[in-house]
Amino acid sequence: MPRLFLVTLLTDFGARDPYAGAVKGAILRHCPQAQIVDISHDVPAHDILSGAFVLAHAAGHFPPGTLHLAVVDPGVGADRRILAAQFGGQTFLFPDNGIITLVAEAMPLEAIATVTNTAYLPPASASRTFHGRDIFAPLAGQILNGLDIRSLGPPPGTFKMLNLPSPRGSGQGVVGQVIYVDRFGNLVSNIPASLVRQTWPDTDRLHVRCAGRDVGPLRGTYDLAAEGELLAVLNSMDLVEVAANRARACDLLQAGPTSEVRIGPA
Amino acid sequence: MPRLFLVTLLTDFGARDPYAGAVKGAILRHCPQAQIVDISHDVPAHDILSGAFVLAHAAGHFPPGTLHLAVVDPGVGADRRILAAQFGGQTFLFPDNGIITLVAEAMPLEAIATVTNTAYLPPASASRTFHGRDIFAPLAGQILNGLDIRSLGPPPGTFKMLNLPSPRGSGQGVVGQVIYVDRFGNLVSNIPASLVRQTWPDTDRLHVRCAGRDVGPLRGTYDLAAEGELLAVLNSMDLVEVAANRARACDLLQAGPTSEVRIGPA
Amino acid sequence: MPRLFLVTLLTDFGARDPYAGAVKGAILRHCPQAQIVDISHDVPAHDILSGAFVLAHAAGHFPPGTLHLAVVDPGVGADRRILAAQFGGQTFLFPDNGIITLVAEAMPLEAIATVTNTAYLPPASASRTFHGRDIFAPLAGQILNGLDIRSLGPPPGTFKMLNLPSPRGSGQGVVGQVIYVDRFGNLVSNIPASLVRQTWPDTDRLHVRCAGRDVGPLRGTYDLAAEGELLAVLNSMDLVEVAANRARACDLLQAGPTSEVRIGPA
Repeated sequence: MPRLFLVTLLTDFGARDPYAGAVKGAILRHCPQAQIVDISHDVPAHDILSGAFVLAHAAGHFPPGTLHLAVVDPGVGADRRILAAQFGGQTFLFPDNGIITLVAEAMPLEAIATVTNTAYLPPASASRTFHGRDIFAPLAGQILNGLDIRSLGPPPGTFKMLNLPSPRGSGQGVVGQVIYVDRFGNLVSNIPASLVRQTWPDTDRLHVRCAGRDVGPLRGTYDLAAEGELLAVLNSMDLVEVAANRARACDLLQAGPTSEVRIGPA
Repeated sequence: MPRLFLVTLLTDFGARDPYAGAVKGAILRHCPQAQIVDISHDVPAHDILSGAFVLAHAAGHFPPGTLHLAVVDPGVGADRRILAAQFGGQTFLFPDNGIITLVAEAMPLEAIATVTNTAYLPPASASRTFHGRDIFAPLAGQILNGLDIRSLGPPPGTFKMLNLPSPRGSGQGVVGQVIYVDRFGNLVSNIPASLVRQTWPDTDRLHVRCAGRDVGPLRGTYDLAAEGELLAVLNSMDLVEVAANRARACDLLQAGPTSEVRIGPA
Repeated sequence: MPRLFLVTLLTDFGARDPYAGAVKGAILRHCPQAQIVDISHDVPAHDILSGAFVLAHAAGHFPPGTLHLAVVDPGVGADRRILAAQFGGQTFLFPDNGIITLVAEAMPLEAIATVTNTAYLPPASASRTFHGRDIFAPLAGQILNGLDIRSLGPPPGTFKMLNLPSPRGSGQGVVGQVIYVDRFGNLVSNIPASLVRQTWPDTDRLHVRCAGRDVGPLRGTYDLAAEGELLAVLNSMDLVEVAANRARACDLLQAGPTSEVRIGPA
């Protein structure tokens, strides 16, 4: 396999300010061959859970050996640690604030290090408010150049995981909640499609409720509902999703994160 | 000419969710040398006409041999077809929903195929809601790797074209309508500059009206009007455009898509 | 050092329209090896000062030899000049409207040319409203291919600099103003950290006021304030910044560009 110089960026820096550009520049300064791919810079400011969700559902599709820089980092410059880890053949560089949670739940941990080796950290005079540019980007360039993440420092005893709600059984059904609302207004729940398929081999007879309203049976895709009609699917992230055909389910249902989603026999 | 691995993306996936990143990852997984260029991910959700407009006015400027992935696809997973085509030396991969309309009107068709060859389609177990990631991206990677689009399937008998309004003659003038409003608030009409120049060799004597108001003669560029003043130009897309110097014509005129635009001798 | 084909884009074209894509295509048509990196396309429309700010705080972090295309150009097609210049080892191509101001203040000028050589300008029939695509992009491609900017034309006698306010001494303190508000709502002032450190070797005893309110002493980083609390830092751009921990200082203070910022002994 030819050597990859592929690095993705996931941040809450926005697309308007100099921050994302400065990070790209600093990576390229350390590794001019870097191939930088934006996953997103539009994670809502300081929203670690949204960042964790986007990272988990984008990163795994990249080629093995890709480096993912995930910088949603409200604790920058304070005492939170910086970690480098390999999960499922992909490398991640991230603040230890829980942004890795959904990756760590989905992909096997293969290596992990706390970045403590002062050879790879900037002098004390560096910025304490922009580690993305001054620590993460130079490290990313050096990892692309071949630096083994195990030389960055010792493994942490543990690392921070967000305490997320789990779906639970209730009567004949499963009850979960909305964990993400996408730009189409689709409501993504925390109920795994695998759990649905294990519980009910015949998914044709199931109905989904969201925010107290019946949105009908599971459909194969959005366009099988009438235009503007609410519907539910087992989505491309293998989660139960409440949507509407060419319309915004979140508006139709006045629902959003933490709204209840319930699935079970009609 | 050296081999190109250039692929552009035009979608309505937004910049905030994992979708665009997942598509990029899936392309790179199939073709790690791919050079991915974003045209836009911010086409308004499900807005095929806006997608068609942006595609037509961006794609043609790329080098011959570029692959363009255009995924504004509200009918995903239902019975709409996926097409691959070559127009004017550029390759396009797109749902057969009309998004190719303005490219097809502007550039000569050189090859076209309906994607039916099961060797290039995912198993039935794949997602029916995210063909961008699960069908378009892997196909894009394989086309970049050298796959001839003619091996994807037979030509379609025909393909879907949006039924767009045409400008019409009226008295001494031509009447069209606004088909696109850009981020500057400029109102782009469907009246071709070529039609204007054919009809009136002396364009200096023409006046433009929009939404019932005279916006003056054609100017050479925006800055030739006073600051905040309405004006009209034959724009860089060779269309009649109503604008304002450093101001938003759409707000000044309370105009938008389908608003009438009229040009003729003063 | 291996040859770089690296070009960054900073524009106010937005992410939604065909303009940024058309520029990328036109660069690649002239230089297929070009590696295009977006700094931002979301500079507020026609906002030269914001563009100047973002350019200055992103460009310098790129590798020497990078070409930066900065097109915030409300005067397009009128009589403003197009300049190519080298500052601090980086090359810039830009309209002569002041967008280079903060780069020129921070980095040494090494070469500069007014683009007048008709061999590198399009025919008179070209668009007068989209020089980004029709002049800047082809020039960028040719510069990446090795064209010396000195062949583009003679040096201008001078070039336009924005007339920006300077911080001034007042009593025992320094008074400046907000010049930029970022996506986090942080208020960036025009008071250089270097001026603060020169004036008061002991920065621990300083207090910062913004919009008439005391926001406390300088902190090392955001997270050292309580959540939601206002604070001040010497930021990563070496400027005095008023922020709030995980909250929007601009909203808490009802402050924005030109709001007063004052620093001095408590």
